[in-house]
Amino acid sequence: MELVPTQTAWLTQALAHLDVLLLDHAHCEKKAARVALQLMHRYPAHRELVQDLIPLAQEELQHYDWVNRRLDQRGIRWGNLAAAPYGSRLQQLIRRQEPAQLLDSLLVCGLIEARSHERLGLLAAAVDDADLRELYQRLTQAEERHQRLYWTLALTYFPEVVVQTRWAELVPAEAEILRTLYPQPRMHS
Amino acid sequence: MELVPTQTAWLTQALAHLDVLLLDHAHCEKKAARVALQLMHRYPAHRELVQDLIPLAQEELQHYDWVNRRLDQRGIRWGNLAAAPYGSRLQQLIRRQEPAQLLDSLLVCGLIEARSHERLGLLAAAVDDADLRELYQRLTQAEERHQRLYWTLALTYFPEVVVQTRWAELVPAEAEILRTLYPQPRMHS
Repeated sequence: MELVPTQTAWLTQALAHLDVLLLDHAHCEKKAARVALQLMHRYPAHRELVQDLIPLAQEELQHYDWVNRRLDQRGIRWGNLAAAPYGSRLQQLIRRQEPAQLLDSLLVCGLIEARSHERLGLLAAAVDDADLRELYQRLTQAEERHQRLYWTLALTYFPEVVVQTRWAELVPAEAEILRTLYPQPRMHS
Repeated sequence: MELVPTQTAWLTQALAHLDVLLLDHAHCEKKAARVALQLMHRYPAHRELVQDLIPLAQEELQHYDWVNRRLDQRGIRWGNLAAAPYGSRLQQLIRRQEPAQLLDSLLVCGLIEARSHERLGLLAAAVDDADLRELYQRLTQAEERHQRLYWTLALTYFPEVVVQTRWAELVPAEAEILRTLYPQPRMHS
């Protein structure tokens, strides 16, 4: 089941504020590494999860570094931005009892990677700057791998019908969160 | 100022329970990556800190993987152990106002790396198993680099006299935490 496509208004907003977007992007890469570590901490005996998330977290850290270098090239001061509600509202969709919590956590991570994959692809196709385009292209491919990785982990621990059913609930819920464009430009506004 | 040397009782306890120690060690490597990410999250505009902690966190994740492989070779089931009080008691030494919080965080990380460096060196010199010895030797060197890295970061953001004064307070406090051997074998019992 595919994600609901990003509305045009997001791309317009993003292209008009590439610097702010890049600053938010740095935060997203770091956050992705943190979430992977949080999962490894919560499920230390889940071998496949730990084995797959170690290189994923290392790669997210690499991307964080790449984005930071772009910030430097463009003279943008590093720092935090107010977060769009996307992450916290997705968090609320995660059930708090096991094993549902593990399933939901993996699928929400997969959703975020899928959305990042889609949006980085939109940016890669639309930005004029050759260096940024190359960055976005490279990261688009990585996000697709990560999305598949989270999906495969979900299938490792849960029957396919359970995974598909929950995914079919989460996909429209994620789209609903993005239906109202957040007024500040963000990767997930 | 050097750390107070580890008491012999710790090494005796550790050598008698190398499997448990290895399981705790895996946790420590993962925790070290998490703490580095937490610092990058809290200080996203501190360039040197971010630039130095990205490769450090990647390396800790690599070590986590190495230790996990040793767990497999020895047939030890992955999982969490009850934590020794070392980490939480060191946390209590960190002042909660900035800039003291940053200084204390960097020095406490440096202390932990220094203690790990010392103890891994003791293990490297004492274990019979050639593979474990090689692992401990390699990690001893890494911990020394990390210790220096945290020290250098402290000197990046604070005058040397301030760093030295606080270090001189933390060193005996850390030794006091370790004075009573934790009854369970741990890297920091």
